[in-house]
Amino acid sequence: MEHHIDFEPVGRRGHCPADQTLLDCARDLGVDLVNLCGGAGSCGRCKVQLLAGTASELNSVERTTLSSDEIAEGYRLACQAYPLSDARVRVPPDSLTTPQRTQVDGLEVRVRPEPPVRAFRVRLEPPSLEDLRADAERLLAALEDQHDVAGCTIDLAVLRDLSPQLRERSWEVGLMVRDKEIVGLTAWPSRPLGLAVDLGTTKIAAYLVDLESGETLASRGIMNPQIAYGEDLIARIERVMTTPAEADRMQALVVDALNEAAASLCAEVDAAPAEIVEAVLVGNTAMHHLFLRLPVEQLALSPYVPAVGAALDVKARQLGLCIAPGAYVHLLPNIAGFVGADHVAMLLATELRDAEGVVLALDIGTNTEVCLFNHGKMTSVSCASGPAFEGAHITHGMRAANGSIENVRLVGDRIEFKTIGDDPPVGLCGSGILDALDQLYQAGVLDSKGRMGDHPRVRATDGSREFVLVSEEEQAGRPAITITQKDVRELQLAKGAIHTGIQVLLETNGLSEDDIDQVIIAGAFGTYIDVSSAMGIGMLPRLPLERFRQVGNAAGTGARLALVSLSKRAEAQAIAGQVGYVELATAPSFMQIFAQSMYLG
Amino acid sequence: MEHHIDFEPVGRRGHCPADQTLLDCARDLGVDLVNLCGGAGSCGRCKVQLLAGTASELNSVERTTLSSDEIAEGYRLACQAYPLSDARVRVPPDSLTTPQRTQVDGLEVRVRPEPPVRAFRVRLEPPSLEDLRADAERLLAALEDQHDVAGCTIDLAVLRDLSPQLRERSWEVGLMVRDKEIVGLTAWPSRPLGLAVDLGTTKIAAYLVDLESGETLASRGIMNPQIAYGEDLIARIERVMTTPAEADRMQALVVDALNEAAASLCAEVDAAPAEIVEAVLVGNTAMHHLFLRLPVEQLALSPYVPAVGAALDVKARQLGLCIAPGAYVHLLPNIAGFVGADHVAMLLATELRDAEGVVLALDIGTNTEVCLFNHGKMTSVSCASGPAFEGAHITHGMRAANGSIENVRLVGDRIEFKTIGDDPPVGLCGSGILDALDQLYQAGVLDSKGRMGDHPRVRATDGSREFVLVSEEEQAGRPAITITQKDVRELQLAKGAIHTGIQVLLETNGLSEDDIDQVIIAGAFGTYIDVSSAMGIGMLPRLPLERFRQVGNAAGTGARLALVSLSKRAEAQAIAGQVGYVELATAPSFMQIFAQSMYLG
Repeated sequence: MEHHIDFEPVGRRGHCPADQTLLDCARDLGVDLVNLCGGAGSCGRCKVQLLAGTASELNSVERTTLSSDEIAEGYRLACQAYPLSDARVRVPPDSLTTPQRTQVDGLEVRVRPEPPVRAFRVRLEPPSLEDLRADAERLLAALEDQHDVAGCTIDLAVLRDLSPQLRERSWEVGLMVRDKEIVGLTAWPSRPLGLAVDLGTTKIAAYLVDLESGETLASRGIMNPQIAYGEDLIARIERVMTTPAEADRMQALVVDALNEAAASLCAEVDAAPAEIVEAVLVGNTAMHHLFLRLPVEQLALSPYVPAVGAALDVKARQLGLCIAPGAYVHLLPNIAGFVGADHVAMLLATELRDAEGVVLALDIGTNTEVCLFNHGKMTSVSCASGPAFEGAHITHGMRAANGSIENVRLVGDRIEFKTIGDDPPVGLCGSGILDALDQLYQAGVLDSKGRMGDHPRVRATDGSREFVLVSEEEQAGRPAITITQKDVRELQLAKGAIHTGIQVLLETNGLSEDDIDQVIIAGAFGTYIDVSSAMGIGMLPRLPLERFRQVGNAAGTGARLALVSLSKRAEAQAIAGQVGYVELATAPSFMQIFAQSMYLG
Repeated sequence: MEHHIDFEPVGRRGHCPADQTLLDCARDLGVDLVNLCGGAGSCGRCKVQLLAGTASELNSVERTTLSSDEIAEGYRLACQAYPLSDARVRVPPDSLTTPQRTQVDGLEVRVRPEPPVRAFRVRLEPPSLEDLRADAERLLAALEDQHDVAGCTIDLAVLRDLSPQLRERSWEVGLMVRDKEIVGLTAWPSRPLGLAVDLGTTKIAAYLVDLESGETLASRGIMNPQIAYGEDLIARIERVMTTPAEADRMQALVVDALNEAAASLCAEVDAAPAEIVEAVLVGNTAMHHLFLRLPVEQLALSPYVPAVGAALDVKARQLGLCIAPGAYVHLLPNIAGFVGADHVAMLLATELRDAEGVVLALDIGTNTEVCLFNHGKMTSVSCASGPAFEGAHITHGMRAANGSIENVRLVGDRIEFKTIGDDPPVGLCGSGILDALDQLYQAGVLDSKGRMGDHPRVRATDGSREFVLVSEEEQAGRPAITITQKDVRELQLAKGAIHTGIQVLLETNGLSEDDIDQVIIAGAFGTYIDVSSAMGIGMLPRLPLERFRQVGNAAGTGARLALVSLSKRAEAQAIAGQVGYVELATAPSFMQIFAQSMYLG
């Protein structure tokens, strides 16, 4: 007997034998739960939360290890609990061994720091009957006197802390000053920290940065917990439209995740979240709006306009972010309803504005934004590529984690593959999916319409065909890893969307593929794909390999640049103003291009 | 048999026969409960809340009239409930017939309006596939285009409302603009309203003002509910020092009271609190700090400095005020730990800065601030006069309400008096107390040390002497109204404090009483006192009557001026910078002057 187990938010689901623990199920499905004691129940690290379904009764090991609060909330030790039915299981971030390996890496941050917040040491004379100035005025006078910084105001939250802090710290403090406002008060010496966030539909990348040196001190990739409300942004917008109260919950989910991320990042460098005196957040327009609790209805209805385009500075506390009490979150500008601040950040990081010739820049994700630089003129489109390349909606798809197949070669009837961590294979991540699709097409298993033909590894199940990458036998009895005909259709839609965007941009500019001097591929998925495979199936233009540049999470890099440099913020605003936007669906030949783009090759 | 009943927050307490309803008790003690049906229980207006003690069981009338929530919270109909023990009873504002009559009246607001918030009508072209600008940028462009107002930002709370509002209102809205920030969004036509608040230790005066005309549309006087935490500000500061969490509760109490006041004021003129787009609040430094949740410890410890002196602009929502979501509260500057924004507001309203010669200005309250204008130079002191003149700590004292004795004359053995509303006498309000003290002193019943001598109306109770103003017989069996020896001591302390302040100011300026050209008396109490009586006991300088000017609640007037005029705000800041402050206790001859000031006459 088997149960269907769905692990959230890692996005891995499948059937597991009823006599396996949840830990075994997780392993089979490629979910890397922490497990230091080998399943003995002594380390207590493999905590999961049972959201739906039933499992074996709590045993004595779990009763000892879990708190009563945890038990009340449905927490279990995965190594002790057996599913008794189909189940939905939440895996908290702390129970995962390997965060998504790829989502935080990106271009180096090379910029002279011009931080928005500067730290000043101020020493005051204490008040006396001869000098009865209020604490705030005393502080501001000293700041002007000692640092020539005049005309400042003090954030109310900082003001509330000022009088006791001055007395506790013997009238010597560090002041965090942002554009004539005191946003933080600390002991001296103090080091102003910043938080940069790339808020993706699926993944969140967070970076802790030293504002004075510009150095990235720590980084962390986590899942966007809003996935529970829908895997793509349209699903989430629809959720808000049908149940407006969910907008608050979705906002709170992201804020909680960011607060947790900030706390762990700070813990890594022995700092406290209150030392974070500035944050920069980028995301697509929908993520940006949901994060700020701005209305999203108009994003989903023609003509799809954002509530706001310009860059914003918002008090972090107004959003529930637990960093310095007076700190701001800076949000880079949005270009259009589906071309957001993350695209601007990518353009900033890749310095596309200063390119020469014709350059194509793509940020491949659940939504893919493409910008064409044509001798100084930039035009962008947005393609709803969907989460297929992130492993979702693909039968044996999974996110890039240990045991996921990342490269595939078909040699005759034999399959050669490589998994992340060289672990036994448990599924396919994006680059593996792309490789498989290309190999099947090159070998003629798939025709250009994506129809699956005959091959020794092709079999029919339930009337539908599938290609067996790893069979049950090769898996020592565990489930096979296959690519189904339905998977191929999903992937055709995804690659077709991206190809359409590129073609519409070229057409709008009167250019052809051959005119492209360089292709910049950004995004976690884009970093690890085999460009030949992407060209092979016709997702990317067929060009010499040396014209491609894979830059990793450029949006995250752009966020960090804007975090440490006011000039970069100004540049981001200029970019947003310069980029022309093409609404894909309104391009004259859209339908025709899209139909052609679905073909492989 | 009798019970001791304490009515809060009106501050009236006394013994009532056990066979009287709470309504009868309230009447006896001068608490004006609403009672439209004559005690039949049918109007349901005399609701009170039993905070301590027991009363008769709920009867069927109460069960029908009160909601289950009210019953759970201890609400009773005063006309139906009989006390069964000593009791503490809260009277909600709605159950009182007459608010404090005097606390809102003041000088007329005569100033050309230069409001901080201006309303603009803006009409927009809706977005289309040819014009995909974001809603915010579209709005800002129209504002610049139609009204030449450029470079504005939009408050996040307003931004959250913008996209749906534009669509609901067919792309025509009213914008409330404050110093390049859009703080409100309304239907058009719209009328920007303002709220001015004088937050006193005992009383709160609130005014609803039309920002464009400067006209006061409605006003309301309520009690400061923080009284439950101590009648004077030192008691409240000590409460916060011993139990810091109380600061949040005290702040919330005032905010709740202001929200209620704003809602009733708006209801009077058929408006909604969300139409209030700006507020100004003045109060003494302690009330100011408690309202902003600023630390108050340093106010209570030498050298008694405020956390902040300068004027502040704070988002109303950050304080919990339910007015327009983006509105600010402007707080006038404080001068010193015990000379606050209310004093600045009084000086602003009385235009003392533009006076000639030598002028003394007093705002008499639980704390009394005195300013001496000496040919252009202003010096202020603060005197802890206590709440005796507000009727507190005086055996038969009460606040100015119907039935309180406000004037007293002693003609031989006979007493002549006048009560507010010409109702049967129930107690003494401030002006009556002052009159009585003066009359007893002039008649020789009190000597200059305040010792009570013999008189047909003086009697001894429990070894202490008291002067009977209205006897039990004259009251038809209800309790007598008397002035006790202890009352006299309380009043000597109060008048001594004020006299000391005046004398120290004169001495500091090298002046004597005769040099004073004018005395301005502000404050609710000061409006109704008989100046001759105040001179008679030696509280005010002995000067010709025509040199005195009673101006009512000048602090409230100053708050209204600052609400409607940016020039007046600048003037207030200038005043705060000009006024010199003398810490009373540090004046060389303070002890000597204070000892002398205690004498009557």
